[in-house]
Amino acid sequence: MEFLLTVQSTPTAFADRHIGARRQADVDTMLKAIGYDSVDGLVDVAVPDSIRQETALKLQDALTEVQVLAELRKLASKNKTAVQMIGQGYYDTVTPPVIRRNILESPAWYTAYTPYQPEISQGRLEALLNFQTMVQDLTGLPVANASLLDEATAVAEAVLLMRRANKNKTAKDGKTVLDADLLPQTIAIVKGRAEALGFEVEVADLSAGLPDGDINGIVLQQPGASGRVFDHATVIADAKERGALVTVAADLLALTLITPPGEQGADVAVGTAQRFGVPLFFGGPHAAYMAVREGMERTLPGRIVGVSKDNAGVPAYRLALQTREQHIRREKATSNICTAQALLAIVASMYAVYHGPEGLKAIAETVHGHARVLAATLQKAGRELVSDSFFDTLTVRVPGKADKVIAAAEARGINLRIIDADTVGVSVDETTTPEVLSAVAVAFGAGPVGDTEGFDLPAGVVRTSDFLQHPVFNTHRSETQLLRYIRKLSDRDLALDRTMIPLGSCTMKLNATAEMEAISWPEFASIHPFAPDHQTAGWRELIEDLEADLTEITGYDQVSIQPNAGSQGELAGLLAIRGYHHSRGDEQRTVCLIPASAHGTNAASAVLAGMKVVVVATAADGTIDHADLTAKIEANRDVLSCIMITYPSTHGVYDADVREVCDAVHEAGGQVYVDGANLNALVGLAQPGKFGGDVSHLNLHKTFCIPHGGGGPGVGPVAAKAHLAPFMPGDANSDSSEGGVAISASRYGSAGVLPISWAYVKLMGGQGLTEATKAALLAANYVASRLDEHFPVLYTGEGGLVAHECILDLRELTAKTGVTAEDVAKRLIDFGFHAPTLAFPVAGTLMVEPTESEDLAEIDRFIEAMITIRKEIDQVAGGDFTVEKSPLRNAPHTAAAVVSSDWDRDYPREQAAFPVHHLKQDKYFPPVGRIDGAAGDRNLVCSCPPIEEFQN
Amino acid sequence: MEFLLTVQSTPTAFADRHIGARRQADVDTMLKAIGYDSVDGLVDVAVPDSIRQETALKLQDALTEVQVLAELRKLASKNKTAVQMIGQGYYDTVTPPVIRRNILESPAWYTAYTPYQPEISQGRLEALLNFQTMVQDLTGLPVANASLLDEATAVAEAVLLMRRANKNKTAKDGKTVLDADLLPQTIAIVKGRAEALGFEVEVADLSAGLPDGDINGIVLQQPGASGRVFDHATVIADAKERGALVTVAADLLALTLITPPGEQGADVAVGTAQRFGVPLFFGGPHAAYMAVREGMERTLPGRIVGVSKDNAGVPAYRLALQTREQHIRREKATSNICTAQALLAIVASMYAVYHGPEGLKAIAETVHGHARVLAATLQKAGRELVSDSFFDTLTVRVPGKADKVIAAAEARGINLRIIDADTVGVSVDETTTPEVLSAVAVAFGAGPVGDTEGFDLPAGVVRTSDFLQHPVFNTHRSETQLLRYIRKLSDRDLALDRTMIPLGSCTMKLNATAEMEAISWPEFASIHPFAPDHQTAGWRELIEDLEADLTEITGYDQVSIQPNAGSQGELAGLLAIRGYHHSRGDEQRTVCLIPASAHGTNAASAVLAGMKVVVVATAADGTIDHADLTAKIEANRDVLSCIMITYPSTHGVYDADVREVCDAVHEAGGQVYVDGANLNALVGLAQPGKFGGDVSHLNLHKTFCIPHGGGGPGVGPVAAKAHLAPFMPGDANSDSSEGGVAISASRYGSAGVLPISWAYVKLMGGQGLTEATKAALLAANYVASRLDEHFPVLYTGEGGLVAHECILDLRELTAKTGVTAEDVAKRLIDFGFHAPTLAFPVAGTLMVEPTESEDLAEIDRFIEAMITIRKEIDQVAGGDFTVEKSPLRNAPHTAAAVVSSDWDRDYPREQAAFPVHHLKQDKYFPPVGRIDGAAGDRNLVCSCPPIEEFQN
Repeated sequence: MEFLLTVQSTPTAFADRHIGARRQADVDTMLKAIGYDSVDGLVDVAVPDSIRQETALKLQDALTEVQVLAELRKLASKNKTAVQMIGQGYYDTVTPPVIRRNILESPAWYTAYTPYQPEISQGRLEALLNFQTMVQDLTGLPVANASLLDEATAVAEAVLLMRRANKNKTAKDGKTVLDADLLPQTIAIVKGRAEALGFEVEVADLSAGLPDGDINGIVLQQPGASGRVFDHATVIADAKERGALVTVAADLLALTLITPPGEQGADVAVGTAQRFGVPLFFGGPHAAYMAVREGMERTLPGRIVGVSKDNAGVPAYRLALQTREQHIRREKATSNICTAQALLAIVASMYAVYHGPEGLKAIAETVHGHARVLAATLQKAGRELVSDSFFDTLTVRVPGKADKVIAAAEARGINLRIIDADTVGVSVDETTTPEVLSAVAVAFGAGPVGDTEGFDLPAGVVRTSDFLQHPVFNTHRSETQLLRYIRKLSDRDLALDRTMIPLGSCTMKLNATAEMEAISWPEFASIHPFAPDHQTAGWRELIEDLEADLTEITGYDQVSIQPNAGSQGELAGLLAIRGYHHSRGDEQRTVCLIPASAHGTNAASAVLAGMKVVVVATAADGTIDHADLTAKIEANRDVLSCIMITYPSTHGVYDADVREVCDAVHEAGGQVYVDGANLNALVGLAQPGKFGGDVSHLNLHKTFCIPHGGGGPGVGPVAAKAHLAPFMPGDANSDSSEGGVAISASRYGSAGVLPISWAYVKLMGGQGLTEATKAALLAANYVASRLDEHFPVLYTGEGGLVAHECILDLRELTAKTGVTAEDVAKRLIDFGFHAPTLAFPVAGTLMVEPTESEDLAEIDRFIEAMITIRKEIDQVAGGDFTVEKSPLRNAPHTAAAVVSSDWDRDYPREQAAFPVHHLKQDKYFPPVGRIDGAAGDRNLVCSCPPIEEFQN
Repeated sequence: MEFLLTVQSTPTAFADRHIGARRQADVDTMLKAIGYDSVDGLVDVAVPDSIRQETALKLQDALTEVQVLAELRKLASKNKTAVQMIGQGYYDTVTPPVIRRNILESPAWYTAYTPYQPEISQGRLEALLNFQTMVQDLTGLPVANASLLDEATAVAEAVLLMRRANKNKTAKDGKTVLDADLLPQTIAIVKGRAEALGFEVEVADLSAGLPDGDINGIVLQQPGASGRVFDHATVIADAKERGALVTVAADLLALTLITPPGEQGADVAVGTAQRFGVPLFFGGPHAAYMAVREGMERTLPGRIVGVSKDNAGVPAYRLALQTREQHIRREKATSNICTAQALLAIVASMYAVYHGPEGLKAIAETVHGHARVLAATLQKAGRELVSDSFFDTLTVRVPGKADKVIAAAEARGINLRIIDADTVGVSVDETTTPEVLSAVAVAFGAGPVGDTEGFDLPAGVVRTSDFLQHPVFNTHRSETQLLRYIRKLSDRDLALDRTMIPLGSCTMKLNATAEMEAISWPEFASIHPFAPDHQTAGWRELIEDLEADLTEITGYDQVSIQPNAGSQGELAGLLAIRGYHHSRGDEQRTVCLIPASAHGTNAASAVLAGMKVVVVATAADGTIDHADLTAKIEANRDVLSCIMITYPSTHGVYDADVREVCDAVHEAGGQVYVDGANLNALVGLAQPGKFGGDVSHLNLHKTFCIPHGGGGPGVGPVAAKAHLAPFMPGDANSDSSEGGVAISASRYGSAGVLPISWAYVKLMGGQGLTEATKAALLAANYVASRLDEHFPVLYTGEGGLVAHECILDLRELTAKTGVTAEDVAKRLIDFGFHAPTLAFPVAGTLMVEPTESEDLAEIDRFIEAMITIRKEIDQVAGGDFTVEKSPLRNAPHTAAAVVSSDWDRDYPREQAAFPVHHLKQDKYFPPVGRIDGAAGDRNLVCSCPPIEEFQN
């Protein structure tokens, strides 16, 4: 009773809507199965006393949904919208309403998980393949990935890619040269990464030719930060001559008019797809892109969608080359990129699908035309343009008057870019109207705007090649067509709006509508990241408030929400540790201890932070092997930088000795990094900042309800104790030396989605958050208790309890019957479920995390499915059918398969399609059967296949 | 070419997004099939010269979506939101965000059609059945309908129902007595209807007992307009004693605490479900309800969902008792109700599903508690309460100070109800906070609010019975659960977001997102219909603007958007004609000529307007039989009130002689009513107000893009020439004698959805609207040309062309093979299509209207399906299978059917499920097979069936 009635006093308490098992009868049923009388009793045994926090969370009392929306409206009203012409990598754009409502605001899209289970992800995989095809066509390079985090970090990834791909024996160890006309935040980010990894970066004006010395690679920008369109042909040829590789950061819209990097010989192209319909969002999230020339595809970081076939020969999409993902490479990793910006990449791809080549070109021509009109007007009035050749951005010299121009524009509701006291930038975008152009001209003291004249693009860079010729970009022109295409794709997928997604470690819980709503309000969505502070008071108040709440929740002293993915949060935390050691003269402290069971990204991030990874063994019970830990600490005592642990462990168990582990590391002069991936098991019960951690990153898209969006956006704030605070992420756009290395292109990273987490914390309050944690423990232990006899639970802690997830061990069953964990995962699709986490952290297992948001009926439906599957495994064991001919190996079953007149399986069609009766009326059929991933990797196809291939 | 390039100059022209066939190649393909060179050439032949308008529409130039949304934001900002405590039938409420986003803002719900094809409508039928069950439980009456238009018209319907149901020989012709404490708009509406129909209505204080004389029926209200809760037991018993029937208008939320009308002996209960989560919407649309006692179900107006079985014995929902719908009864009609408020009823039902009985009761108790606190505070301060017994509304006497109190409240952002100079009303709702209560107290000059004390409900009316015990109201408590329930239901249905809905006469075209967005903005959605005018300037500007645009489009002199359904627009138009004749002393002019092919609602509306219907025959070519018309005019010359014609005719053909018809009627002193159902074939080409009409109603949910919402809301503005203007709808809430009979409870009817039509007109501009009409003609003629050889097109006009729809004649095929039009309609479901209009206006036919929004590929997919079906009919003719064993008669096929191991049909499973190949990957399976409607009518079940029934 103590569990329920605390918050339930009003019918509108949000915790009662967020938590699935909220009725006493349901809670009692679950407790009984586990063998406890009360939730608190269960929690007291499961969570070690040694880590329990002593006082309740000190957060504002829970607000109702109505109150939270009212508060958000108040915050929104403190932001001032303006015509955003600052540019510098961020441009206003029109999100077609049909895309906003049916993708950005549709749970079918935003609650979807990363498409690791491709059979239930064909819709979002197709949308991401469209994104890749779009990038390939526009950049003129044959292979693109399915998005990166932001343009600046994408350039950093490109630089690292060049460093590992360049095999030229003199050039490969040379410096990296950045053109001086790159975006300032890009230069800052690249320098920060290079410093940790210890390679040389030089910034030079490449329009004047290459600098001397060995050069690993160069980075150009088209158009440049100044707006200048510059023919890169010569410098690229020179670079190649000298054995250097070439990256071009390019604007996708400009590429509809300008010769693409691939045609000029670039090896890599990067940039952002933001202006393809993705709101400014105060800096993010936006989808960055990367494309490479042939032969480099296997070194491309991030996720790549590829085309393969299913077991019936039907073309099918899946993530390609997954074996090269960083979580496999671990300490050999060359990138820690894990999350993509899937939801935003999908929006951008749909923008291209809707406009098509002729529409995009028309938008680009309008933008360019407006910029030309403005240039002519300013020039006529005697203003000096830095470049006569531009696409959308003018850099204008106004000696001594920049402030005045900026102020005059702002008085007219327009934000321009202040570059220095003498220089102002203006960027035109698709929303720019003639009235705005006139107002800008007036702000510059120029006369009325006239007609377009002069300022043609230089002949050498005018694009002549076709792009986006695939039918998908030439079909969906009416809103009706696009709406149905969007619906069709989402219907192919399973997301949280149809089924639980019991993914251990990934925490797929409710993304409540009230949490989601504010992100598309113009007062949040249309704010430029470099808008003046007096226009962004609401944003900054919200962010500071969220950081303060997260500080309280984690028990640390400071939080920065800048990192725009968990991997970036890890990097930020490790760089903070590095900065701390360096500040004490301990440059030699570079060893990072990582348990064998850790997520691969841990090791990858350590490598990127310039550390050396030393693996600590796992004991038989799944905890850290203390003897090995002691040995490794001893062996590295003088060079020990830190240990990275996940708590509760990736095995889903609270290790009672965590304080001892932390103490041992501290005693040796090391720092403790607590990976916050499993914070859902701690909130309100224990604080990593209090039980030994020096720094953590959180995953707001796990514990704090930012939806997974089909594989991003993620947000990975870093939280640290006071001694690390000076080394928290700095601002890539500030000359100030405050803070450490900048992690993201913009100061607040993926600000645009932070209202979600802000709202979640406010809606739950400290008590609600704590109850959610307890409910997550209850649910996980219920699943473990019910399923253990069918699939042994691999690791447990005190009292045989698990934390918020449990690992089901299939290995003995596999050995006996040949039925694999993958077979079970695929068979669950026939029951309408997304699979649990497969083969992580232990191969041959499934890790189940029901979260607090699932109700008893849904959990029972999952348990029923698993038990039914276990019976089928027994049928294999009993010889009813071989594993090859079993419904398990042949899962999932498409409608086409079960309807076929040629059915020749050893089990009836009904067993295939309706293994439990209640599926009959609302059956989900996957669009494809089991996909052969290896075949697709052997014959890599990463762009939209011809329509004919589907007509088999 | 002339057709295309006119608007396509910018990539963001909305007409290019609204119109499906917009590419030259597609247009050429369609023209070629029809045999024309140009769209204008086709239009010039199809549309008679005699009606063509001479000048282009004079409307504002088309705006882009961005511009329209900016304009709407400007209009919105001219409305002032306030805490709405005016009450009087409209209460603020919290629409749970999950319901708003996933129903009100989800195309899967709002683009759905009325569930006449039940197999593809099981989701919305279940939601509507939930609504009925909710109403039944709360009112204590066994049968409810699936909603009515608003509370006041629902009371009018109840009065009419009592008049036809009362068989007591003295009472049946007696007067109708309304309690004086009914809502003023209710009294006005009932009096207006009674006047036309010629029965007596008396208003009396029934708390003082029944008046003398014969009484047909009485209407009570619980709580009364004054807020008073009054025990009706005695007066109901007295009424029964005197042979009168009893209707109680009751507040659903109050009924969670108060004895329901059914338990007090009422025959009928009516009211509104608005406060169950439906925004105020400046007066509508909201779902009204009606429930009746056993034995009266077959006289219940509106739609009723009932439970039946499909061909496999699975429980299945469908509209029950359709044979008694007004379109069958025609001139014997007793109600003209045709549209329901389905979308709003669904919202209200989900509100009950989400809150459940305990949640609703908690809300009611909070509301009541707040009202009690306020009452105690006011009483303590010496303010006089009109009643000590209330639920949520206090009527307070403040002699001479009402204006002052109202102003003091408004200064605090609160709207109260001004009743007269001495009396103020205050209504508490679920959004009322303690802070608001304090502010109200201050406005009354009272002290701080204290605790609840006194003012218990009278013991005799405290509810003791259970309600909402069905599992559906006791399961979906978490947002995750409700989200999945909503998704599951919508997945069972086919709406415009998945398929064309080629419904002749119903015009299912794009409901664009940009058109839809503004309706849920608080500045539109949260305005009370009786808010003072200075708070509603934006609303009124939008409405006047829309009325002006519709005036221009129709060629009339004045438009009123008050009627909240087409049927109400008809009634309004006919009452205007009646008013006009009466004003000239022509009371004897009561005959309304109606062609045999007319929609049944025409006749029903005429009856309700007190007219006598005389049917005019149809000629062999589908036009009006001129000889019969002449004869009927002659026979009724002195008593001729009007003719009602539909143009183009319900046969989908432009009658070249329409001017002659109009002239003949005018010559005889009659008026011409042009039903605007087919206005989609006229906009920009011809104006009914110019070619002979005196008055028309439009259907904004057809031609002007208000979505059908699964069967409502509809909006049916009435448009008239100047001589009828004085008789256009008056305001039911105004003492002013301006205008004619009030048609809807609130001045602007379903104001809440008018931004949709406003935006549509602005987005299209005159040219875009005209091109849409041409595109609709092109599409319909393309379908007719392609299908004629397979299914003969029944009626054509000039050049063998149709207008915007075509009737496919199945009768000869039926005679030959036994395959019926219904079989074809159901078989189309297997192809993923919603059927065309079945058996209207001609039995044995299908009427197809593709609209301008469908693109060529979708139309071709439909044609392919129809041709494939025709081949199956040939297979029946050729003896491949009997009609009984054909895929046609056995359609639609569920997944359960085609997967069954016991398949014993004479055709393969693949033919059943995948009659064309491209269905394989994205197949829609209906949740149930062919439904036996008659069986359900014999054994009427109109509430949620026990869960066990589904476990067969």
